[in-house]
Amino acid sequence: MVFKTPVLIVNFKTYAKATGKKALELAKVAEKVAKELDVEIIVAVQYTDIKLVAESVEIPVYAQHIDPIKPGAHTGHILPEAVKEAGAQGTLLNHSERRLRLDMINEVILRAKEVGLETIVCADKPETSAAVATLKPTAIAIEPPELIGTGISVSRAKPEVITNTVSIIRKIDEKIPILTGAGITYREDVEKALKLGTQGVLVASAIVKAKNWEEKIKELSLPLTLLR
Amino acid sequence: MVFKTPVLIVNFKTYAKATGKKALELAKVAEKVAKELDVEIIVAVQYTDIKLVAESVEIPVYAQHIDPIKPGAHTGHILPEAVKEAGAQGTLLNHSERRLRLDMINEVILRAKEVGLETIVCADKPETSAAVATLKPTAIAIEPPELIGTGISVSRAKPEVITNTVSIIRKIDEKIPILTGAGITYREDVEKALKLGTQGVLVASAIVKAKNWEEKIKELSLPLTLLR
Amino acid sequence: MVFKTPVLIVNFKTYAKATGKKALELAKVAEKVAKELDVEIIVAVQYTDIKLVAESVEIPVYAQHIDPIKPGAHTGHILPEAVKEAGAQGTLLNHSERRLRLDMINEVILRAKEVGLETIVCADKPETSAAVATLKPTAIAIEPPELIGTGISVSRAKPEVITNTVSIIRKIDEKIPILTGAGITYREDVEKALKLGTQGVLVASAIVKAKNWEEKIKELSLPLTLLR
Amino acid sequence: MVFKTPVLIVNFKTYAKATGKKALELAKVAEKVAKELDVEIIVAVQYTDIKLVAESVEIPVYAQHIDPIKPGAHTGHILPEAVKEAGAQGTLLNHSERRLRLDMINEVILRAKEVGLETIVCADKPETSAAVATLKPTAIAIEPPELIGTGISVSRAKPEVITNTVSIIRKIDEKIPILTGAGITYREDVEKALKLGTQGVLVASAIVKAKNWEEKIKELSLPLTLLR
Repeated sequence: MVFKTPVLIVNFKTYAKATGKKALELAKVAEKVAKELDVEIIVAVQYTDIKLVAESVEIPVYAQHIDPIKPGAHTGHILPEAVKEAGAQGTLLNHSERRLRLDMINEVILRAKEVGLETIVCADKPETSAAVATLKPTAIAIEPPELIGTGISVSRAKPEVITNTVSIIRKIDEKIPILTGAGITYREDVEKALKLGTQGVLVASAIVKAKNWEEKIKELSLPLTLLR
Repeated sequence: MVFKTPVLIVNFKTYAKATGKKALELAKVAEKVAKELDVEIIVAVQYTDIKLVAESVEIPVYAQHIDPIKPGAHTGHILPEAVKEAGAQGTLLNHSERRLRLDMINEVILRAKEVGLETIVCADKPETSAAVATLKPTAIAIEPPELIGTGISVSRAKPEVITNTVSIIRKIDEKIPILTGAGITYREDVEKALKLGTQGVLVASAIVKAKNWEEKIKELSLPLTLLR
Repeated sequence: MVFKTPVLIVNFKTYAKATGKKALELAKVAEKVAKELDVEIIVAVQYTDIKLVAESVEIPVYAQHIDPIKPGAHTGHILPEAVKEAGAQGTLLNHSERRLRLDMINEVILRAKEVGLETIVCADKPETSAAVATLKPTAIAIEPPELIGTGISVSRAKPEVITNTVSIIRKIDEKIPILTGAGITYREDVEKALKLGTQGVLVASAIVKAKNWEEKIKELSLPLTLLR
Repeated sequence: MVFKTPVLIVNFKTYAKATGKKALELAKVAEKVAKELDVEIIVAVQYTDIKLVAESVEIPVYAQHIDPIKPGAHTGHILPEAVKEAGAQGTLLNHSERRLRLDMINEVILRAKEVGLETIVCADKPETSAAVATLKPTAIAIEPPELIGTGISVSRAKPEVITNTVSIIRKIDEKIPILTGAGITYREDVEKALKLGTQGVLVASAIVKAKNWEEKIKELSLPLTLLR
């Protein structure tokens, strides 16, 4: 099973508002909107919440990171098999808040494939997105770190970053889904991201911190309904 | 609530045999022995298994690590609040497989106190154990990394490491529980560890890889019953 | 040979104004003031400049970091023996811009002793300063990171951090020199640092960025002359 | 100025036999062979030895790593400008003993270009070599880490790793020099490496630990003379 595009990915990060019981609440709201609008929404939750959320919703649940390890003596690390057994369908990787060594990105993508986890690998720039593409993850998310959490979306502020990224990745891989992250806040940001040639968006604070989760998720999901 | 001494801590690491459903099974065996022998046994499980295990057993459940972060934008990190809400009573820290910067050990102990988590901080040598003692965690575990997973217990092979550690820590803190780790495999290892002045043991492979979990946990728990 | 107290340590960091030929110039100005005022001034320079500077001045030259490695296969690392042979008398360690794992601070202090290098280990707080003291470096520098580079000296803004640090370290080690860092900019800052019970100061931007190096080094050295 | 191919790169690592005065001796032997046989030999020395060696030999001198920083407050880091001013023509990067985050490899290549340093970026596998190629360094070195220091050359033991790497990189960049590392010990290893389509070799222990440096460097350089 691979996630469908266009897609909205909600990164819960380690926000208090998206931890434990509240993570479950938020995931249920995302599921409700996904069903109502018939769009693909993925929730990327904390490790401790994967099982709880995955057992309670029918939309895909992701981890936010896994380590490139095999079962064994790795106290305190994130075992891909553990994340899988807890119910995750995939994982984010190399987010700007959890950057990885190049060799580890490669290893962890291979481990994820072995275990049956999808991988959405983040990158900060067109060049590094291309580098990621050569490693064949499930998808790539381009997130200029200077815009993360700002409310200024990359699709509005730096559309050329998106188009450059798409063009450079497409030379290496014609089909891999490309997602736009960083600062996505309004419906227009999502529309722009899709118009610029990407297949979805990665959103965190705009949704988690929204006063009305359902409204905000709907707002950001609507553009996805037009592309089916 | 603080764990009682003498104590047996079972570190599940990321062993396949101690992941997910099997983690729960192992934790239940530990709980059974803890009740039968009336001894304190703590299980340190993977993040993804904390909730499952904590809801199903009455013995203390620990994480294997937490990050020195506050709620917020920390994709892929281990939020102390999340570990607490999932049901953990405390956490291991600075294990030889997950060493930390000195400033972070301090920060994370402070964060754990804020959140109400106990901290068992590992150290590799008498000197570093003393350093850890100045930071006032709940307990200190001395684990010479060269003996971890060898089946050669530090209490037999290097008793002077234990006695030096105890003596150097006691100058700084008269009461803090000191635990012996690394290579603990047989009843005699635990007896020796207690005789040398420590208040418990930290065990991983000897238990997780044992053919008969119950027998092995009983064997290693028996010496604890003599000290009450 | 151990450096004398009171001492002024000038951290060249990786400032352009203190790199290569300019590092040599700045070191010569420091040497000039050290001789004129008969005070102890140490210059902590970049690795690439150690040999050049150490061959040209008679004041102690320090590295800014060394790695806890032995000679061998460690591409790109800082070998203590190499730093020693290049002419360094010692090294800074665990600066807020280059923090180390606790076990590595211990190892690297031991390696430095083997090789005959002095170690000035930085710490961010009273607690971590105490932890460092248990590891027996040559000296400890307390530098609250939030004041580094601000021009607001810790001795003025947070005198209690200094006095707490001194009191907590003195319980562990009666003699080890304690240095004050972070924001030291004016003569009064140095006077205060010495008055609060520390044996010297660690300064970077206030000197490196000064319009007149000689004047600024003299200003900050003068209080040292009163303590002999 | 860019290094010529075919090329022999001698990585001095942090071997005692290749530190300080001995680094200079070894570099002079390399220079002697380079002149006698008219081949391109690069020496990658420790930071502390760059200036000494670069001033004394006419062959290119490389650093073993640089950090992706600009001049400023970066205590203990490796400033590209400092390495350049000391006389380096380029630097190794991402060696298996000093792996880097993907975003940092990109940043540091850009910084090196700004400063006028060449970059030879190591990679462990065909996939990661391709990823590196998208970042446009001066050259790429493929070094399966499991063979480094073994005396078993990758060109003999795993020729398909080399041919796969060449083929995958050539799809991305038709011209970039590709070097073979890991276990290169004998003349045949170099011949094989060149025959498999790479433009040079990266050697450390086979040369540094050789009883007779001149003989070994000649042995490994001879195949280069046949390709001009």
